Amino acid sequence: MEAAVATTTFGDRVAEAVERKRTQLVLGLDPVVDLLPVELAGEAVGAEGRANAVARFCRGLIDATAPACLGVKPQLAFFEALGSHGMRAFARDAGLLVIADAKRGDIGSTARAYAAAYVEPRADGQPVADAITVNAYLGRESVEPFLAACKRHGAGVFIVTKTSNTGGADVQDLKLSDGHVVWHQVALLAREWGSELTGERGLSSVGLVLGATYPREIGEARRLCPEQVLLLPGIGAQGASPADVARAFTSGPASALVSVSRAIDYAYRAAGGDWRAAASAEATRLREEIWSVSGW
Amino acid sequence: MEAAVATTTFGDRVAEAVERKRTQLVLGLDPVVDLLPVELAGEAVGAEGRANAVARFCRGLIDATAPACLGVKPQLAFFEALGSHGMRAFARDAGLLVIADAKRGDIGSTARAYAAAYVEPRADGQPVADAITVNAYLGRESVEPFLAACKRHGAGVFIVTKTSNTGGADVQDLKLSDGHVVWHQVALLAREWGSELTGERGLSSVGLVLGATYPREIGEARRLCPEQVLLLPGIGAQGASPADVARAFTSGPASALVSVSRAIDYAYRAAGGDWRAAASAEATRLREEIWSVSGW
Repeated sequence: MEAAVATTTFGDRVAEAVERKRTQLVLGLDPVVDLLPVELAGEAVGAEGRANAVARFCRGLIDATAPACLGVKPQLAFFEALGSHGMRAFARDAGLLVIADAKRGDIGSTARAYAAAYVEPRADGQPVADAITVNAYLGRESVEPFLAACKRHGAGVFIVTKTSNTGGADVQDLKLSDGHVVWHQVALLAREWGSELTGERGLSSVGLVLGATYPREIGEARRLCPEQVLLLPGIGAQGASPADVARAFTSGPASALVSVSRAIDYAYRAAGGDWRAAASAEATRLREEIWSVSGW
Repeated sequence: MEAAVATTTFGDRVAEAVERKRTQLVLGLDPVVDLLPVELAGEAVGAEGRANAVARFCRGLIDATAPACLGVKPQLAFFEALGSHGMRAFARDAGLLVIADAKRGDIGSTARAYAAAYVEPRADGQPVADAITVNAYLGRESVEPFLAACKRHGAGVFIVTKTSNTGGADVQDLKLSDGHVVWHQVALLAREWGSELTGERGLSSVGLVLGATYPREIGEARRLCPEQVLLLPGIGAQGASPADVARAFTSGPASALVSVSRAIDYAYRAAGGDWRAAASAEATRLREEIWSVSGW
């Protein structure tokens, strides 16, 4: 079974999982020690205590929200705090895909080292993550080792394209001589890089990261890149709502994944009560709302 | 003494150090286990053995080349392998600036966490690194926490602008509607972000990373950004030579730093003999050649 899974393309794995589980929600893990629930904050003393408290928090969130989620997206920094193997094993037990939010972009041996560390199989035959986010400012060369892992091991790559923050416009929205803007061209490069990595279900292993805070741009990206899975952060703390991502799903129910971090992680601060129950309730609500706007 | 150093701007620290030591050479640390000298390769067994062997290699290189170098530029991944505090302490004992080659680019809490981890003072009052490389694709917001560290703690930031790899052109050389290309605009943003961080010696704490493999572009960047320190990798294994960086120094002897990794780290493979002696000889040779082309 495991061997067969490893050679299925990432696009096909996402398509299969979304249809089976009927959810496009990804749990973003954004653990901040100062915001930990009281029962965990007490033990978060010293470097080891903090790491343990953060690990318990993340595992509690995964456990509570797994029925409503397709995957989990931890910031790479937190992988280290949690121990990457433990994290992967836990997410896998919960039946979730793991998207490492690395935003790495480097060349040659460094890019190869990152690919080996995160999306190529380790000693136990499994990679630490199923997919990884990559910054493509250094061009195809910096993405190449990840594309190789897509081809050989069924990994996925999400190219950071149009980010959710307002300041992203400084570079991403610069106007090109052909009338496009910079992020359009990054999207078209991702399409080109992913053109030979499209699975049987029509989705490529190379996706795009786009801020849910930019609904019009989501529509533009969808038209430019019909085969790309769009990974959309920005709902909740950053101000976007499920309605803002509706245009992302015209290439199928699995053609976009919506990543929500703080609104789920810290739901208990608004809702009160047990932190796990609050996260579960918020994830369940978002899952339904997103599925509904997706039109599938 | 330490307190005074901490409040001097990074530009002034670089200017003072270059003039005192008469070198613009930075030792790039790019340790690859398979390329370790025989005497170290033997003990590089298992994760801990590899980490120890790499640490001994890096420390040997720092020790051997310190008289010829201004600073050391380790890939961030290797900081972790070496233990970041040990690394910093060792480089400081050798009288070297530390430039963390992170190429990070992220927003909000993640960018703040990276700034805190690398360029803000730790428990011992010292930061892990004096400066850090940053990818600005996510805009000013992603650079802001590092600019704050420049202002408060005398840190430095190098914005990844025109990289040494050929594939960098995919995004960096896209033509803008105003006739510039993307990397020009990134350079101008860096100039703007660094405009209030210029020291008494006329150099800003916000510099640029430019590939020494692009001599013409170095001249363009120098004209666009007269106050920026240019950090120039690409000499040696990537094909550039000291003559290629001559145009970088028109803003003063400290207005460019030349980072060389593999040609020094693995000099023993071409030269034979002791690896430390080979690294020392190559660093000495490069230091003199670069100082000579700099025209100071």
